[in-house]
Amino acid sequence: MAELTTSSGTRISFTMRIAQIVFYCSSLLFMSLGVEFYGYTAFCYLVTVMGLLIPWSFTLAVVDGYAVIIGSRLRQPGIQMIVIIGDWYLQVLSLLALAAACATAGVIDLLPQLKGSHCPSSLCSRYQISAIMAFLSWFHTAASALLNLWLFHSM
Amino acid sequence: MAELTTSSGTRISFTMRIAQIVFYCSSLLFMSLGVEFYGYTAFCYLVTVMGLLIPWSFTLAVVDGYAVIIGSRLRQPGIQMIVIIGDWYLQVLSLLALAAACATAGVIDLLPQLKGSHCPSSLCSRYQISAIMAFLSWFHTAASALLNLWLFHSM
Repeated sequence: MAELTTSSGTRISFTMRIAQIVFYCSSLLFMSLGVEFYGYTAFCYLVTVMGLLIPWSFTLAVVDGYAVIIGSRLRQPGIQMIVIIGDWYLQVLSLLALAAACATAGVIDLLPQLKGSHCPSSLCSRYQISAIMAFLSWFHTAASALLNLWLFHSM
Repeated sequence: MAELTTSSGTRISFTMRIAQIVFYCSSLLFMSLGVEFYGYTAFCYLVTVMGLLIPWSFTLAVVDGYAVIIGSRLRQPGIQMIVIIGDWYLQVLSLLALAAACATAGVIDLLPQLKGSHCPSSLCSRYQISAIMAFLSWFHTAASALLNLWLFHSM
């Protein structure tokens, strides 16, 4: 198991990071390109969390990509520790993403009943897609972090 | 580390289970004793999740309580495995509780703007307390499950 102290630097880890970034970005874009998102606290919260997640996940993807390109795993304990801590910080942030996705879903459900609100189906479905993307991004990040925790324990 | 394969059967584990049950029950009661909770999907979802969590957590608390009373840890690998699987099932359910708490919080934020809705402050604050209790219950369950995962890996 000494080979597998973290999954960082492997192709699968890099692929998961790219998938995470795609989900974060699509969640952010589907929500923020809507006109009225800043009128609802839950939507603002989702946009804020995604704005925090993207640069962090991008940094970890760059580290993984570098390791894949040079064709060598990052074996230095210092770098591995930084990646693990970074991954757990990402995990905490992605729990916020789950929270934001659920709050958004709760709000979308009530949108048609709001006073003075008109929710065209195109706009409402964009909000829904954004919530689904946020949920998928949380799922990917949680899977990645759990794998890393399991492997880290074998160090 | 052979002593610490799970925290099950210790006083701290039993105390955490009791705290979880208290949070689950108070979340359920604060929500379901309100009159109109079934009018909102998020509130119904919270009540359903809490209804699932309480008997499950109660069963694990009984196992822990039995071990504390007889003054011996449950060392049989079979029982430990059942407790660990039960604890992870509880953890998955408690993620649903987190989701329900966030959806509820999102809905509470919009309640005053709903058509034909009147939200007396006493009723609204009960919904808020219910959401906070659900969040605290998730936090307790997650801490307990992570501790068990960590210790289980030492088996």
